[in-house]
Amino acid sequence: MDQLAIGVDLGGTSIKCALVSRRTGLVHQASRDTEAARGPEVVLDNMAGLIKMMMERAEGPVLGAGVGSPGIINWDRTTVSEPPNLPGWKTVHLGEALSGRIGVPLEVLVENDANAAGLGSAHYGAGKPFDSFIMVTLGTGVGGAIIYQNRIFRGASGGAGELGHMTIDYEGPVDNHDIPGASEAYLGQRFLSAHAARMARQTPDSALNDTIRERGDLEPHLIYQAAVKGDQTALEILEWAGHKLGVLLGSAVNLLDIRKVVVGGGLSAAGDFIFESARTTIRQFVTHGLREGIEIIQEPRGNEVGVLGAAHLVFERVDDAVASSVGD
Amino acid sequence: MDQLAIGVDLGGTSIKCALVSRRTGLVHQASRDTEAARGPEVVLDNMAGLIKMMMERAEGPVLGAGVGSPGIINWDRTTVSEPPNLPGWKTVHLGEALSGRIGVPLEVLVENDANAAGLGSAHYGAGKPFDSFIMVTLGTGVGGAIIYQNRIFRGASGGAGELGHMTIDYEGPVDNHDIPGASEAYLGQRFLSAHAARMARQTPDSALNDTIRERGDLEPHLIYQAAVKGDQTALEILEWAGHKLGVLLGSAVNLLDIRKVVVGGGLSAAGDFIFESARTTIRQFVTHGLREGIEIIQEPRGNEVGVLGAAHLVFERVDDAVASSVGD
Repeated sequence: MDQLAIGVDLGGTSIKCALVSRRTGLVHQASRDTEAARGPEVVLDNMAGLIKMMMERAEGPVLGAGVGSPGIINWDRTTVSEPPNLPGWKTVHLGEALSGRIGVPLEVLVENDANAAGLGSAHYGAGKPFDSFIMVTLGTGVGGAIIYQNRIFRGASGGAGELGHMTIDYEGPVDNHDIPGASEAYLGQRFLSAHAARMARQTPDSALNDTIRERGDLEPHLIYQAAVKGDQTALEILEWAGHKLGVLLGSAVNLLDIRKVVVGGGLSAAGDFIFESARTTIRQFVTHGLREGIEIIQEPRGNEVGVLGAAHLVFERVDDAVASSVGD
Repeated sequence: MDQLAIGVDLGGTSIKCALVSRRTGLVHQASRDTEAARGPEVVLDNMAGLIKMMMERAEGPVLGAGVGSPGIINWDRTTVSEPPNLPGWKTVHLGEALSGRIGVPLEVLVENDANAAGLGSAHYGAGKPFDSFIMVTLGTGVGGAIIYQNRIFRGASGGAGELGHMTIDYEGPVDNHDIPGASEAYLGQRFLSAHAARMARQTPDSALNDTIRERGDLEPHLIYQAAVKGDQTALEILEWAGHKLGVLLGSAVNLLDIRKVVVGGGLSAAGDFIFESARTTIRQFVTHGLREGIEIIQEPRGNEVGVLGAAHLVFERVDDAVASSVGD
């Protein structure tokens, strides 16, 4: 029999929501502004509105809702604390807050947004062929998740996978947590754009300089577009970014012995412009015994893996309940 | 009822062997030269001799033997392949090789030596209070293990925990795998001694210069002895090493969300001379959300955790067999 669950991706700018079928994947999708500045009550109203809409569209019982959220998630996956970019939140029990608003009791499971994306990739995306892989999301920040034997590796308290804060140079530039040489200080959007602008200034004949004049900024997708057109500076910037990604992933492979990597987020659209140098670099940074079988691939489903993985939390919980009742 | 198993720590220089009681720990210990240069047959004879001796001393049935070994261990924990420092080995099935020599069938489980030490610390050493911790062994090289929920985290193929090859500076000095900025290129014995010699040359009034003249080298325990006597250069060297250790562990904590660290190996004897700066540094390199509850402590049992953990592999296997028969 098929199973239905709702997945929510709670972001600082928008809330994405989907009705997900275990058998066929996405059934319905919707999204709306988070209205984060109006505080937690409004954000929770907005989430509840989307969930209600999906429940009405479901042609069968909905088993529950999963939420991918920024911030600190407790071990039981019921609360989210102090999510960055969502002002005014302290600790919110999402099941209580949402059930009350929806008017029916709903089991709600929360997971770190990067972990939810990893789980989505594992079951519906590029990670499907692998039992274990590292997911890295190159967006505004650098997010990460460890999928181990088809599950999220959560660490001791649910916070594992912070690839963006791993250092690759202890004397390097600091990220927004003041960590020297954190990978986010190279690959995070703001940092990469700043690096690209510096590189462009040094090569006045690069088309990137026109882009800066027109757009005022060098967002990663604009660098990628210039690279597609053969702009040498743009190519070098993406190669530079790939090198930093390869160093980071090399460290992660050494620690985890998980040799498959799925890359998502906006910058992953640059594909082999980044991945080729990442693939060359990662081999240099991995111990001999772990070099075989390393793969770095792109997540083509983009942000969809976030809502899919969030919904999958519910399916996983159902499986666990069945397994433990069989064990009794 | 008590359980007995044999633990073996196979090193390039010596083989250590112990009879271990699940209830009381070490019962008997013995060690001998590995005679690695004489090839695998002699080494296996030497291992079998020690195991036989322990079996004769056991006042009850021995459930099996666990071996901590360098080299690549297969997923089933039966074979070891191409251990560095053991010339002439290809892939050896240890159960077969040892049972034949001992004259009775013996279940033999192999694990990476650093992982065995981690497991020993978890059940008999400094790691006992923690469900999950990172073990780092500062010896000739820098070894590591991840203990997660009282088990070895093995990664996808049994090779996880290579902390020594994680980079902390992608443009740093290379280790013996040519990895730039690998932690072993700072903290491995040879590298640390070379750094210490350079530091000593720059401070002619340091007592370390006398040590170099007398001993020809600056082994870590000599640096530690000078630090105890208040030699400023020695103190700075150990602080420098602690800083590198802190950077490395910060990266590992970000990835794993495992905030307890047990440090073993020869250099760990330097204790707070290293750990104080490691503790300060690790906080700078860990993302805000994971900074609480970080601990770095010393493994006081030294090399004993290697044989204890190896024996514990056997106890763990017995537990698993019981658990799976209950589940039937």
